[in-house]
Amino acid sequence: MNISENYTMLCDFYELTMGNGYFLTGKKDTVSYFDVFFREIPDGGGFAIAAGLEQVIEYIENLKFTERDIALLRSKGCFDERFLDYLREFRFTGDIYAVPEGTPIFPGEPILTVRAPTIQAQFIETFILLTLNHQSLIATKANRIVRAANGRPVSEFGSRRAQGVAGAIHGARAAYIAGCAGSACTIAEERYGVPAGGTMAHSWVLMFDSEFEAFDKYCELYPDNCVLLVDTYNVLKSGVPNAIKAFKKHNIKKCGIRLDSGDLTYLSVKARKMLDEAGYPQCKIVASNSLDEYIIRDILLQGAQIDSFGVGERLVTSKSAPVFGGVYKLAAVEDEKGNIIPKIKVSENPQKITTPHFKKVYRIYENSTGKAVADYVCLHDETVDENEPLTLFDPDYTWKRKTLTDYRAEELLKPIFKDGKCVYTRPGTDEIRDYCAKQVELQWDEVKRFENPHNYYVDLSKKLWDVKQKLLADSAK
Amino acid sequence: MNISENYTMLCDFYELTMGNGYFLTGKKDTVSYFDVFFREIPDGGGFAIAAGLEQVIEYIENLKFTERDIALLRSKGCFDERFLDYLREFRFTGDIYAVPEGTPIFPGEPILTVRAPTIQAQFIETFILLTLNHQSLIATKANRIVRAANGRPVSEFGSRRAQGVAGAIHGARAAYIAGCAGSACTIAEERYGVPAGGTMAHSWVLMFDSEFEAFDKYCELYPDNCVLLVDTYNVLKSGVPNAIKAFKKHNIKKCGIRLDSGDLTYLSVKARKMLDEAGYPQCKIVASNSLDEYIIRDILLQGAQIDSFGVGERLVTSKSAPVFGGVYKLAAVEDEKGNIIPKIKVSENPQKITTPHFKKVYRIYENSTGKAVADYVCLHDETVDENEPLTLFDPDYTWKRKTLTDYRAEELLKPIFKDGKCVYTRPGTDEIRDYCAKQVELQWDEVKRFENPHNYYVDLSKKLWDVKQKLLADSAK
Repeated sequence: MNISENYTMLCDFYELTMGNGYFLTGKKDTVSYFDVFFREIPDGGGFAIAAGLEQVIEYIENLKFTERDIALLRSKGCFDERFLDYLREFRFTGDIYAVPEGTPIFPGEPILTVRAPTIQAQFIETFILLTLNHQSLIATKANRIVRAANGRPVSEFGSRRAQGVAGAIHGARAAYIAGCAGSACTIAEERYGVPAGGTMAHSWVLMFDSEFEAFDKYCELYPDNCVLLVDTYNVLKSGVPNAIKAFKKHNIKKCGIRLDSGDLTYLSVKARKMLDEAGYPQCKIVASNSLDEYIIRDILLQGAQIDSFGVGERLVTSKSAPVFGGVYKLAAVEDEKGNIIPKIKVSENPQKITTPHFKKVYRIYENSTGKAVADYVCLHDETVDENEPLTLFDPDYTWKRKTLTDYRAEELLKPIFKDGKCVYTRPGTDEIRDYCAKQVELQWDEVKRFENPHNYYVDLSKKLWDVKQKLLADSAK
Repeated sequence: MNISENYTMLCDFYELTMGNGYFLTGKKDTVSYFDVFFREIPDGGGFAIAAGLEQVIEYIENLKFTERDIALLRSKGCFDERFLDYLREFRFTGDIYAVPEGTPIFPGEPILTVRAPTIQAQFIETFILLTLNHQSLIATKANRIVRAANGRPVSEFGSRRAQGVAGAIHGARAAYIAGCAGSACTIAEERYGVPAGGTMAHSWVLMFDSEFEAFDKYCELYPDNCVLLVDTYNVLKSGVPNAIKAFKKHNIKKCGIRLDSGDLTYLSVKARKMLDEAGYPQCKIVASNSLDEYIIRDILLQGAQIDSFGVGERLVTSKSAPVFGGVYKLAAVEDEKGNIIPKIKVSENPQKITTPHFKKVYRIYENSTGKAVADYVCLHDETVDENEPLTLFDPDYTWKRKTLTDYRAEELLKPIFKDGKCVYTRPGTDEIRDYCAKQVELQWDEVKRFENPHNYYVDLSKKLWDVKQKLLADSAK
């Protein structure tokens, strides 16, 4: 969790049995290429948001088997002593390319590529997937919720329902990257600079002899950040009147109330009226209680008078779609001469067939609008020349074609590790957050729709398409 | 994550603003009682399984604000210096009672109770909920899956799709407690003794010139644990025939094949026949690929010939119900003389009304069958005398009554901390797992059903019921 944590043993056991096997069959130094990609966007959305790369970098840099690890592996009785010896000096010496955190990503394109000796490339599979899958899931969900809130701040409140401590901490980080204004999770501020906030629980109100006394004390203590929870007894009969009384007594200027139960639309409209009439038009209304993008959109459409949202379990677990299905697949190996031999995994399910070879991804923007129109996946040694027309075609329905002339092409995968050394200047959390907001702006509204979004194009270059078709044809022989 | 990890700052920020408030309003040493309970069983099941207590104990024992923590809190500008000073010496000095891990638990009953000075009791809320919610969720799901597999071993395979590192590690722990046979997650064996296992991925098969060569090498390396993945190309045309050929060549006795795609029922029946005819009736068939309790039950009903299951994302995230809704509510405070003053949180939603006071829970077993028939929640100073008849009544429909004569009563909540010291002898992971299996056996089959399970009784004693009614009546005045 913190930067020095060693998660070397957080691997699927088969990575070790395969590693021992590669070691003993003389394949350990064969250079392999593995891609991370995903097949389906959570919640049927139009795009996902990449997140988790920083934790991948920390993991790679901290890779180290301890003597305790070696002893545990020896006790399993299936590893060769020479392999265990080799693990003592094990570290990552290869290359990694990845899309920066905060980038909108689409099914079928590599979002991270590893080029490394086979044992190493295989070994890091589980941790890379776990981290990218988790944080991309939460970032994707948080961005949907933030978009539904339409400019109103959203705070992440879900630590208590998160799936474990990293679910809470890295969940808060991913939510912030994707546009949340902050989190209730204090440690996320300490570790990642995510602004932590919060005021009171129902227990505060119950701890005093009356609701007014609880509010009175709170206003006295926190005249500058006075958000009172008004639903412990009855929102409209006692909560809001007591809040107004306390604000007045302490002459509070910057204030708010929080609604945490009941019909948020109805209560917020009534509370807004009471606050306005009492001379508190500036008092903010915060709403929480089982919110997500669908409910937020709905209550805002119905005229709810809510200024900001606290979103818990449905964000921090991405409750309606709690799995991000990134996979890690072999794309190529190098022969002794360094020639790249593309590899494909076939399947009876066409969606599960991989795209072979060492690849590059360009994001293509049309100059007339500045918006992204397609991603273009090509071989590592192909280059898109913006001065030449670019013809895109659907890899399944190849008669669907489009030729672009006035466009800009940007490479998505950046070098992260080169020969085992991190070559990436890691952006700060706020920088990633800004980048994410700008990148989402470059997507069409049609892609951002919650229902039936436009299917963004991820197309293959002609050369790559040919390689894939040839391998498919060969495999059917 | 490891035993020495300090998660003090993994708290909701409002616990600190309230803490500062309790400190400054002279309430810091007021003794409070908080209960953890939940309202709904995931997946509409008949019971949940408690898990996560061991991590609560580690958290409490490691509570400690560092100077870095204090500096961060100071920078927020809202805490009194005397409070920050107090945090330097902050530790837990109270009592905790909890149900042992592996116990079947039901909505509305306390599964953990904290008695401590208010600041402390309030402060530990987030971590306790996070840990119990996460591990109870996964244990509950895993137990359902294990029951669906009906005696066939289930391995947890989901690290790569878990929600963060603790989702993987503690998820594997919770799954094992609840009956899984092991996990792919290597570090879970090192930390918690969860047997780690696994053999090969598709990449192993692709790394060799042919499927047979990949199998041949594997059998040579691992003659004692030879589970071959047979779906890289075509299960029946190449995978199973190549596996048989490799088993024969290496004279493998203990062997298995794994199916990871396609129609598991159809393929397993066909593969079974091929293996039997080739003289491998002992060869195990392992199945994986998006399994959960519903699919496992279904394919077994259809006659699938599967000997064990690997279950990934749907277990490790509890995909169909990814939130365990445990809450942490104030139940009572003590006055200066040590009298316990019960507290209630009312709500327009009757399900959200809390049960006040410092309580005990008895599980009642009828002697004729040995099975659990009800949980009986009473005041802390009440005692059930097994020699006297016990009348149970439904707390909502009070005319529903039942009097037991021949029964056994067992207290569920055990002392965990007393005056800040751990007084609980922590069972090992295997011991918890055995206990869980035995406790589940004590539930009726009707409670274990997946659809429309019998609603297990959680009843209040007459005294407790009276206290609750009085507080409700008072609050309506």
